[in-house]
Amino acid sequence: MTIDPGLFQENERTAPGGTNQFLTVGPWKSIPEVIVAYQTWGTFTGDNAVLVCHALTSDANCTQWWDRLVGPGRPIDTDQFFVVCSNVIGGCQGTTGPASLDPNGQPWGSRFPQVTVADMVEIQVRLADALKIPRWQLVAGGSMGGMQALEWATQQPERVKRVFCAASAFAHSAMQIGFNETARQAILRDPKFRGGDYAPNDPPTAGLAVARMVGHLSFLSGAALEHKFGRQMQPGTESQFAVESYLNYQGDKFTKRFDANSLLTVTRAIDRWEWQPGPLETTEFLFVSFTSDTLYPPEQADRLTEIARCHGAKATHVSVDLPYGHDAFLLDGELQGKALREFLGS
Amino acid sequence: MTIDPGLFQENERTAPGGTNQFLTVGPWKSIPEVIVAYQTWGTFTGDNAVLVCHALTSDANCTQWWDRLVGPGRPIDTDQFFVVCSNVIGGCQGTTGPASLDPNGQPWGSRFPQVTVADMVEIQVRLADALKIPRWQLVAGGSMGGMQALEWATQQPERVKRVFCAASAFAHSAMQIGFNETARQAILRDPKFRGGDYAPNDPPTAGLAVARMVGHLSFLSGAALEHKFGRQMQPGTESQFAVESYLNYQGDKFTKRFDANSLLTVTRAIDRWEWQPGPLETTEFLFVSFTSDTLYPPEQADRLTEIARCHGAKATHVSVDLPYGHDAFLLDGELQGKALREFLGS
Repeated sequence: MTIDPGLFQENERTAPGGTNQFLTVGPWKSIPEVIVAYQTWGTFTGDNAVLVCHALTSDANCTQWWDRLVGPGRPIDTDQFFVVCSNVIGGCQGTTGPASLDPNGQPWGSRFPQVTVADMVEIQVRLADALKIPRWQLVAGGSMGGMQALEWATQQPERVKRVFCAASAFAHSAMQIGFNETARQAILRDPKFRGGDYAPNDPPTAGLAVARMVGHLSFLSGAALEHKFGRQMQPGTESQFAVESYLNYQGDKFTKRFDANSLLTVTRAIDRWEWQPGPLETTEFLFVSFTSDTLYPPEQADRLTEIARCHGAKATHVSVDLPYGHDAFLLDGELQGKALREFLGS
Repeated sequence: MTIDPGLFQENERTAPGGTNQFLTVGPWKSIPEVIVAYQTWGTFTGDNAVLVCHALTSDANCTQWWDRLVGPGRPIDTDQFFVVCSNVIGGCQGTTGPASLDPNGQPWGSRFPQVTVADMVEIQVRLADALKIPRWQLVAGGSMGGMQALEWATQQPERVKRVFCAASAFAHSAMQIGFNETARQAILRDPKFRGGDYAPNDPPTAGLAVARMVGHLSFLSGAALEHKFGRQMQPGTESQFAVESYLNYQGDKFTKRFDANSLLTVTRAIDRWEWQPGPLETTEFLFVSFTSDTLYPPEQADRLTEIARCHGAKATHVSVDLPYGHDAFLLDGELQGKALREFLGS
């Protein structure tokens, strides 16, 4: 494993994305009306639809955060496919979530029901119905996005021709739950959290920033962090290491775009999820894992492959040797892209 | 690597320890009078002294936290050796630290100077002088304790015959700094921290607990955590995983015994430390690392061994294949104990 400095970026995307569209998909649990934020690319021709599912804190703009896999000429080619991506329920990037307002104009906050990965998919099914998409050529995602793709194959196997699942798991390990719980406690123990009913202009930013720092410890490999920062000091400081500055920057930046209740909701959703599919004879699976991903190690993709095969599916696991840790699923276009092109027969 | 349930415990020691003795060792930086808490075992015969140095949040009672290595008949045999162990300066287990009171009866708090690993050793040198110990047969420690042992060899090579250094590093990697910085930010961003001058009866326990949870994510291996908890639910709860309960318990328990400023002090000390020895011809080194220790991986002990040899020392590195993560240096008496017995020629 060697580090390619050109490839290894801060996952700050500059590719232009689309603009959110909004669709009301009716009530869900105690929420009277759910609005879904989604984006589409390309032209629907009846049998060329692809659904992209996002990871933990991302959004509907997959040509930005997955620009190396989705776009014109990319493995998920928007010149060929009609690509759909929506923000998950419980998130905070346009789709209804805990920070959304109830009919009285108050944030749902602590009253927002716990979301499951199955709920995320149920809402996407309603979107697919509204868009009159009978079947996906491909449902694709990494990390939590991979879980949604697998859950689609469970709930609607006849509507899913292929699943591409990168850097994901059949169920979280104790370590994965441990990282998420530590992040959650940073929020829950922040006095500003106020049981989840914090004021929109006074959220628990301290806890949310620490929660994000905990996440970042698990997103990058030790090798990537070492290559990027080592023991360099932050320029302009006497005693701050560059890696300290980086983590604080990531933590603070996160508080400007993400809601604390949403982070609790989505981390609990993935901790509690387990893949328990029914018959899968009509769906084909490509699993990709990354050798340096200590958060979602390749053994979990081995197990996913076994589960898919046990349920009658054709399933392949490609282990990609790159040193970028869990974030490799966002950073690598070339190697997982090659596997994905072959999988799509393009 | 297999898990031995009998060996894998919660590092809750029941071996009886000694009782702290206290010695005033004079001024240090802006602190007019430093008191050192220390314990001794065995009888001093002139050339049988062993210094044990503790890890991050531990104390002078090494027959308790390192009972598998120190005690009657143990590798560091208290029937044979005169064993000394002291709490580090900047800590909070008896030796002067940020929670100690200034001459006006106020906690030093933010006014306590930043401690270095060299300072820890300088204070231990004063203790050794007071105890009239001309030379150590062995200076031993794991993790931060190992750093102190190496720093002894740098500062006082003629007084150190052998060094036993387990699960440690020549300098922290970006990942090690990253874990510590995330823990520190949990404290620093807690509103109760008040710039380090919190009231003794109202400390930043929320941040301190989260800081400890971050630490625990790095102390155990994924395999150990999986074996211990997997996806078990906590008995008596509907939706809490056992690993969540464990981490919260560890976090809360820690706040009852440890001071937030002390945690900032000792983590900064080890982040900033680098081993830069002079000639080491008269000291012999045994380095032990653990294959599953992702926090202090075996490569760091390889590098330590190289450094010692480059400076003229005889140095050996024993890599122990146990699945307990970084905590293995506390949990394993047998394998590192065997290497240590051979090293001591006993």
